[in-house]
Amino acid sequence: MEDSKLTPTANEDLEGYLRACRAEVESALDAWLPTAPDSPALAVEAMRYSLFAGGKRLRPTLTLAAADTIAGPATADSRSLVLPAACAMEMIHTYSLIHDDLPAMDDDTLRRGRPTAHVVYGEGMAILAGDALLTEAFQVLTRWPRTDDPGVVGRKLRVAERMALAAGAAGMVGGQVLDLHAAGQISTPGTSTVADAQQLTAEELRRMHERKTGALMRAAAVAGAIMVGASDTEADAVDAYARELGLGFQIIDDILDVEGAADQLGKTAGKDAAAGKPTYPSMFGLEESRHMAAASIRQAQAHLETASLAGPLIPLAEWVLARTH
Amino acid sequence: MEDSKLTPTANEDLEGYLRACRAEVESALDAWLPTAPDSPALAVEAMRYSLFAGGKRLRPTLTLAAADTIAGPATADSRSLVLPAACAMEMIHTYSLIHDDLPAMDDDTLRRGRPTAHVVYGEGMAILAGDALLTEAFQVLTRWPRTDDPGVVGRKLRVAERMALAAGAAGMVGGQVLDLHAAGQISTPGTSTVADAQQLTAEELRRMHERKTGALMRAAAVAGAIMVGASDTEADAVDAYARELGLGFQIIDDILDVEGAADQLGKTAGKDAAAGKPTYPSMFGLEESRHMAAASIRQAQAHLETASLAGPLIPLAEWVLARTH
Repeated sequence: MEDSKLTPTANEDLEGYLRACRAEVESALDAWLPTAPDSPALAVEAMRYSLFAGGKRLRPTLTLAAADTIAGPATADSRSLVLPAACAMEMIHTYSLIHDDLPAMDDDTLRRGRPTAHVVYGEGMAILAGDALLTEAFQVLTRWPRTDDPGVVGRKLRVAERMALAAGAAGMVGGQVLDLHAAGQISTPGTSTVADAQQLTAEELRRMHERKTGALMRAAAVAGAIMVGASDTEADAVDAYARELGLGFQIIDDILDVEGAADQLGKTAGKDAAAGKPTYPSMFGLEESRHMAAASIRQAQAHLETASLAGPLIPLAEWVLARTH
Repeated sequence: MEDSKLTPTANEDLEGYLRACRAEVESALDAWLPTAPDSPALAVEAMRYSLFAGGKRLRPTLTLAAADTIAGPATADSRSLVLPAACAMEMIHTYSLIHDDLPAMDDDTLRRGRPTAHVVYGEGMAILAGDALLTEAFQVLTRWPRTDDPGVVGRKLRVAERMALAAGAAGMVGGQVLDLHAAGQISTPGTSTVADAQQLTAEELRRMHERKTGALMRAAAVAGAIMVGASDTEADAVDAYARELGLGFQIIDDILDVEGAADQLGKTAGKDAAAGKPTYPSMFGLEESRHMAAASIRQAQAHLETASLAGPLIPLAEWVLARTH
């Protein structure tokens, strides 16, 4: 790292910290994709098209920030432990965006300001690029750093299990299933009953988002803590933080979907409302939604403070609340 | 295990052995899917629909047979080490079938004698069921058996890395990309050149199948060897065996696609020819294809014999050669 602003404890340093995290992640993603040199060029091109589309890199930043919150300012050694998990989380996030955008799902043609993968490469290749990124995440996590150290090997395995839980049927996939089902997009053999979007309660909406968005944010943050040797108490505090952060993030996302313009968001605005999808603003109004987001962010920070943890995760929560795109 | 026929060394015992392996795998898959109890019921139903459609269970059987070939007759302890990896391989195989059958890929409506997942649940849910099975494979492998034994933890991580390599861009996904590309189903931005199916050379056909089919068979067999503590030499021999076995399997598959009837195959026959896909019979004729398959199977067995390995993998290779569906 070229500067010493790796572990800010005040907001003023945060922008520099976030930039440094993004740069580290971009550089590592660039080095590790593909992990295997004999991957067909077209597969690699499609994977990289979506992976290097200029995202916020929030999930890998959560991984790095959690590591720094537990272990203090990063060293080259500690970064080499944590960056594979950080990159894995971003690969899983990107895979989920590619698949969610497909015509059979949300049918979105614009993402991060560019045509979505299936628009550029066709549906078949987009499905495969997503599959490959999901798989590559486990490859990067299990492969790097190359070491037989039993402690590190054990941490990697715990993170892999945690990541699979977050991504799978009980996590992101399950959330998307609930989302599609609420939108009436799933055939249910043996019954003609399809849930109506209007019937989702606030509790069901929260549970859907906990799976779709929250699960991976929690896994990303906890991975950073685990990889630098957090105690169970510390890892639990980081998990509780990320759970509330994820909720706050989703509420802000819903608010931005109502208020934002496509050119700022880099994706189609007003999409949720147009699809008749339930959102926090549609359920609670904009004003109350803003209060709920702020309460979640405060609660996230409180979980860390209770465990006597202070570090970049604290201002990062403020940043999530204040984001405008 | 209720009988003692777990490790046959002669063909006569093989059918009983295969039945026992299938029963063990079915029972474990049933117990482990879903791994997380709060997975949405609809997601679990769609995953199980494709997973319990009566497949041959060849890949998990390879895992168990490789373990028995290395370590001798199975015990409850050795099975608990190996079954998670075996089930993970079958989950990955099933995910790949679901995605390959999608309208955007091979557009198949019949698989293992039943309507394909997207016909029953819709495309969105079929994509998600595949995603979930791919993820669940890593979940099962990393989670079971629950142990902190550093030796077992290290083996699990090696198998997870190997499995990700086999499934990803350098393996199965890469093979399917080459397949789609040869069939002209992938948009290639910036160029109007699309490879013609007729232009695939025999070498390119082999390399495509090594990725699409061979990579996971190799990972499945090697996983069984690794989990019971095979030496590097032994694991390499099992890998070389599975590489040749996978090639032989694919040639037989192509022959059956020409000769078989849909009711026997449980999938649409003549599909490859209809799609203009290159196959071994279309390239070499049926007679020469049969010779090539037999040569691969003999070579597979020779790799084991060179490493002084004898066990169920030997007759299993004969069985792959003789299969009629």
